[in-house]
This record gives sequence, structure tokens and C-alpha cells, in this order.
Amino acid sequence: MNDWLDEVKWNEAGLVPVIAQEEGSGRVLMLAWMNREALRLTAKEKVAVYWSRSRRKLWRKGETSGNRQRVREIRLDCDGDTVLLTVRQEGGVACHTGRHHCFYRRLGASGWQSVEPVIKDPEVMYGR
Amino acid sequence: MNDWLDEVKWNEAGLVPVIAQEEGSGRVLMLAWMNREALRLTAKEKVAVYWSRSRRKLWRKGETSGNRQRVREIRLDCDGDTVLLTVRQEGGVACHTGRHHCFYRRLGASGWQSVEPVIKDPEVMYGR
Repeated sequence: MNDWLDEVKWNEAGLVPVIAQEEGSGRVLMLAWMNREALRLTAKEKVAVYWSRSRRKLWRKGETSGNRQRVREIRLDCDGDTVLLTVRQEGGVACHTGRHHCFYRRLGASGWQSVEPVIKDPEVMYGR
Repeated sequence: MNDWLDEVKWNEAGLVPVIAQEEGSGRVLMLAWMNREALRLTAKEKVAVYWSRSRRKLWRKGETSGNRQRVREIRLDCDGDTVLLTVRQEGGVACHTGRHHCFYRRLGASGWQSVEPVIKDPEVMYGR
């Protein structure tokens, strides 16, 4: 029974934005997108599976980098059009730039400033 | 100078998804959308101003309910297509249903279950 998937309000492209928040730290790691199949698989496998809008295919987070997200909780908002995941971030790196999370640019007086260190070399992470 | 607004990757509708996270608790309160003007005003006034996709106009969060969001920090993600706000939520209620935040439905064995209490009566909140 996947009736719960019908309660999600998929957008015109059949997608829903998904926020990944780290268990414990409460850090917002990233925002990505899921289609129906991605959300079904995420709930089933308890590992985050997103939809890559650029590559137009399912994207098992960490399949290349090893930085998988173990899903502890899945929530839906009041309008049914946004999903919130509570995750355990394997490797401690959610961002493809090698940072802990994707929101590393902060708005200051002179524009966006990078305020988070690179923890892992992306070239090593992706075996380039 | 609003050059920093040019670094945001607006979608085909000229919008960007914005996550509001509560200062202190780390709670993810809601996801809403901003256009360029909404983000400019939010940065200038330090109060969250969103774009209502249903009403197709700027929406000063709390203009009716009083539940304004004081903005402490504005962040941009690696791809430049998602904004994260750190906010102080006035009135302690971010959701139009009268709950502290919008992600009050949790996925369980029998589907989505409401797991957060209503703190304020929406009818009182919106003066209906």
C-alpha cells in the first residue's frame, strides 16, 4: 500500500522539494528533489534517493562519494508539497564541494561569503 | 548594490525555494518561495517576505497573523538555487494551521500521522 504517496502534492514536473536535516546537530544539509519513485524507495530502503533534475534519473545519494544519508524520519508539511528528512550523514559530508553541508555561503555587507571549510577534497571524493 | 541577487539561480518562474529554520531550536519551520524583490526586501528589512504562488503577490509573513519572522542570517547553497534563513519566529507559530512549524506529519506504518499540537486557534489567529 502506497496510498501515502498520493497525499504528496507533486509539482507540474512530478517532483517535490526535499530538505535533508542532520539528526543531532539539526544542521540543514541540503535541498534536493524527489519524484514518486524516489520517495517510495527512500521510505523502503531508509536511505535517501533523490531525482537528479540535471541528469534526469534517480540519484542514490552517496553512490559515488560514499556519503550516504541514512533516513531516520520522513515528514510532510501542511500543504503536502515539501518533505523533510531527518538523516544521519555518512562521511560527515553532504555537499559535492566537500563541505559538511551545502549552505556555506552567508550574506554579508559585501555579498555572499564562504564561511564553511572544505573537509574532503572533491577530487578524492569522486575519484577523479 | 544588489549584485548578490544576480548570484541566485532563479527558476523558470523567477523564484527560489527558501527554508526557514528557527534560531536556537534548529527546527525547520517551513519552506516557501521568494522572487528577486522578496529576497531584496527580506535582506533590507530583516523580516521574511515571501512570494505567494497562489495569490501571485508579495507576502509579508505575519502581516495577518502577527507571526513575523525576524531574519538573523541568510545563506545560499552550493548551486545557488536554494536559500536558507535563520529566523526568530514571533508568536512561536510558523504554520497557518496554528502549529509551531509546518512539518507536523510524520510517516509511520499506517501513512502520515499528525504528531504536533495546535498551539493557536487559526480562526483567532486570522480573525475569522
